[in-house]
Amino acid sequence: MSPRKIGVTEVALRDAHQSLMATRMAMEDMVGICEEIDQAGFWSVECWGGATFDSCIRFLNEDPWERLRTFRKLMPNSRLQMLLRGQNLLGYRHYEDMVVDKFVEKSAENGMDVFRVFDALNDPRNLERAMRAVTKVGKHAQGTICYTVSPLHTVEGYIEQAGRLLDMGAESICIKDMAALLKPQPAYDIVKGIKDTYGADTQINVHCHSTTGVTLVTLMKAIEAGADVVDTAISSMSLGPGHNPTESLVEMLEGTEYDTDLDMDRLIKIRDHFKAVRPKYAEFESKTLVDTNIFLSQIPGGMLSNMESQLRAQGAGDRIDEVMREVPVVRKDAGYPPLVTPSSQIVGTQAVFNVLMGRYKVMTAEFADLMLGYYGECIGERNPELIEQAAAQTKKEAITGRPADLLEPEWDKLVEQAQGLEGFDGSDEDVLTNALFPGVAPGFFKTRKDGPKNVGKTAEQLAKEKEQASGAAQAVREPIQYKVTVGGRSQTVKVEPA
Amino acid sequence: MSPRKIGVTEVALRDAHQSLMATRMAMEDMVGICEEIDQAGFWSVECWGGATFDSCIRFLNEDPWERLRTFRKLMPNSRLQMLLRGQNLLGYRHYEDMVVDKFVEKSAENGMDVFRVFDALNDPRNLERAMRAVTKVGKHAQGTICYTVSPLHTVEGYIEQAGRLLDMGAESICIKDMAALLKPQPAYDIVKGIKDTYGADTQINVHCHSTTGVTLVTLMKAIEAGADVVDTAISSMSLGPGHNPTESLVEMLEGTEYDTDLDMDRLIKIRDHFKAVRPKYAEFESKTLVDTNIFLSQIPGGMLSNMESQLRAQGAGDRIDEVMREVPVVRKDAGYPPLVTPSSQIVGTQAVFNVLMGRYKVMTAEFADLMLGYYGECIGERNPELIEQAAAQTKKEAITGRPADLLEPEWDKLVEQAQGLEGFDGSDEDVLTNALFPGVAPGFFKTRKDGPKNVGKTAEQLAKEKEQASGAAQAVREPIQYKVTVGGRSQTVKVEPA
Repeated sequence: MSPRKIGVTEVALRDAHQSLMATRMAMEDMVGICEEIDQAGFWSVECWGGATFDSCIRFLNEDPWERLRTFRKLMPNSRLQMLLRGQNLLGYRHYEDMVVDKFVEKSAENGMDVFRVFDALNDPRNLERAMRAVTKVGKHAQGTICYTVSPLHTVEGYIEQAGRLLDMGAESICIKDMAALLKPQPAYDIVKGIKDTYGADTQINVHCHSTTGVTLVTLMKAIEAGADVVDTAISSMSLGPGHNPTESLVEMLEGTEYDTDLDMDRLIKIRDHFKAVRPKYAEFESKTLVDTNIFLSQIPGGMLSNMESQLRAQGAGDRIDEVMREVPVVRKDAGYPPLVTPSSQIVGTQAVFNVLMGRYKVMTAEFADLMLGYYGECIGERNPELIEQAAAQTKKEAITGRPADLLEPEWDKLVEQAQGLEGFDGSDEDVLTNALFPGVAPGFFKTRKDGPKNVGKTAEQLAKEKEQASGAAQAVREPIQYKVTVGGRSQTVKVEPA
Repeated sequence: MSPRKIGVTEVALRDAHQSLMATRMAMEDMVGICEEIDQAGFWSVECWGGATFDSCIRFLNEDPWERLRTFRKLMPNSRLQMLLRGQNLLGYRHYEDMVVDKFVEKSAENGMDVFRVFDALNDPRNLERAMRAVTKVGKHAQGTICYTVSPLHTVEGYIEQAGRLLDMGAESICIKDMAALLKPQPAYDIVKGIKDTYGADTQINVHCHSTTGVTLVTLMKAIEAGADVVDTAISSMSLGPGHNPTESLVEMLEGTEYDTDLDMDRLIKIRDHFKAVRPKYAEFESKTLVDTNIFLSQIPGGMLSNMESQLRAQGAGDRIDEVMREVPVVRKDAGYPPLVTPSSQIVGTQAVFNVLMGRYKVMTAEFADLMLGYYGECIGERNPELIEQAAAQTKKEAITGRPADLLEPEWDKLVEQAQGLEGFDGSDEDVLTNALFPGVAPGFFKTRKDGPKNVGKTAEQLAKEKEQASGAAQAVREPIQYKVTVGGRSQTVKVEPA
């Protein structure tokens, strides 16, 4: 019997650098290796969406739509894949349905093939429109389950959720384990349950981060249970808060009933390319290698450091343990949302407020909105007293309907807004860019003509830093101006190596 | 059905710091956490042997026997475990049988429980005496298979090798995967094969490094096949060229038919202890995170960097690719030895010589000895022409017997040698220390009274380095008074940033 082929989604061009280096990688550092990636045999290449859009215009002076078109041109044989936050698109609020349609349409037009659509609360009503929009333009709509752990989350519940996604027209199901919480046995059970319930031909993609050190085993058990495609990152862009190494997956399967059919010679070229690139972005790197605390606290690393800096800013850096004990309380009151952007920030900040000022003495506006249903529904019931308190505080009513139903058509207004901006190029793409990041896009439009910036360090800078670090003891390496005082008289003096 | 209990050997106190920080960890940085380790529920605690003995006297001015006695005292409830290089003991030559007996006897007397005995060539004749010595003193003799990959190494062959170890009286079998080459499927097949052939109650321990990123999956499949004990390192002392994280193993098994019964609260304390210790030894750390090249080249990372520095010393740093192609040729000629100390150095250096001077134009003394059988037998036939050349060059005869059979009784001579040394304390332990490292022990005996050194950095040093690195460009950051002498005239000068 020939081995069953396991598809692989390579995430080096998107989630890997988002997770490892704060999404800072410049297009310039990616274009040179796209041909090899295109030929290596991946099921898809994740290269857009998530935080890359924001990062392009905020830090890199780069047009994200141009980035997508470039990837399309350089990887003509690959399925390009993106991560889409449902009704939030790539922004941080809900958008009205026509904007969702437009965004999907334009993404498809510019080259996107596979849309991985998720919602932080797993509320299907926040996915539905985006899923339908993808299907309408004839692209691959991947319905996503955000995996989390709570007293209410069960294998059966996840299987049912997969059913709802299939009902929406999902061409595949993604199990998204952004916090590396998915252990081998539940992965096996969920994948097998979905296959058993909805048919063996239901495509299942498994996305795990590697933070807890366990999830390559998770991928193995998911594959044994029938998973079709798994996400990995080339080894030089892997591990820590990132993903499992692509080459390790390939080697892991040798001799088993499964095979990736990836081209190892090309993988080595891809690995060597990013091995050279990675040090350029060292200053943006997280120091975490493996963190099994997440299993105990349910608190992902990024959320923890966020809460710590909030506490320090209040001179309460020593109260992190109290906050960590408060997080489960707040999460329960909110109905056990998965902790992922933006719910992780909302829950974490409220926990900090509770510790500093007394439990729910002050409610953040975002937490109030969460309690009132403005982000959607969670798996659990929300604390009714807190809903009342939130309503009283914000003078808003609790809602039970789909949040986006409250929105008026807004496309024409968004067009008008964009038209008033210097550097606006008249395209729908620019309208969408401004709609997603109205605080950043106007500045970007103005400076766009200057072309992309690379915030990574050059080889020369790296060499110099290395030299400086090694010679730190030797004080003066280049001309420096000093103020020197001798006998009460001050003078400016230039000192340089003799 | 209650889950099957999986034993865990914690390697933080030995192999972890040997693999991650060149065996430099001072006893001072370990004693404080021994009580927690003792209580956490490990099957055994690896804490002695390997390179620690050498490192103690060479770098740390510490008596390795005293280290063992301290561990014994601090961990009264644990099986203490060591790695023993068969007839080589912890040194780099074969020792006569009585010396082997003495070493094992003294190790047991000072507190050792489990002796993991291996030979770099997997030649059973190099293990036999040590195994018998362990059994004689009533301790646990663990027979070891060094795992490697070659056209001659098969699952069946490893199963047969396990049988030979059991015949020698092995109380358990260790599959030792020092280069992280053991993939999940062969691990499953070997473990299952041993259990099927020799009975389900045959204890199997699996030791994997994590260099290739695959081996936590390997441990999972080994456990599914029946493995009884696996080796891990607490997460803050794990990964890279080290081992899989202990906590990740625990979490990996949740919900499965297997359980470690380890005490997670204590694991967290152990983790936090070493998290604080590790930065002190940063200068000794390898930079490798994951390296799947090993699968392609069979060349472990340590061996590669060794060959590279040999080449650079000859001004031929650009010829590493040629050497990497030469290694398989040399390995085949030598009968496919596993590449592990010392065979990796012997094969690697000969490959370098072949590239620089022409194939076998010059044979190293060690390679000649290997070809003549002085290290023992390999799995494959050695190249007969090269055996002849080695004999002609060294004027020695090829041997087929057990190398140690050539040795005369040497204990009395070793006692006499030690007695002539300043600082010798008259004990058999000191005789053994000098027998193992005659080039280092005399110096150590002289300085022993000064007490152990800690080569790690102090918290103050680390803080200062950090400060220097961050402000490296600007030499003088706060007012400093200097005494400056120009043309014989001194003046006090104050310098501050302008």
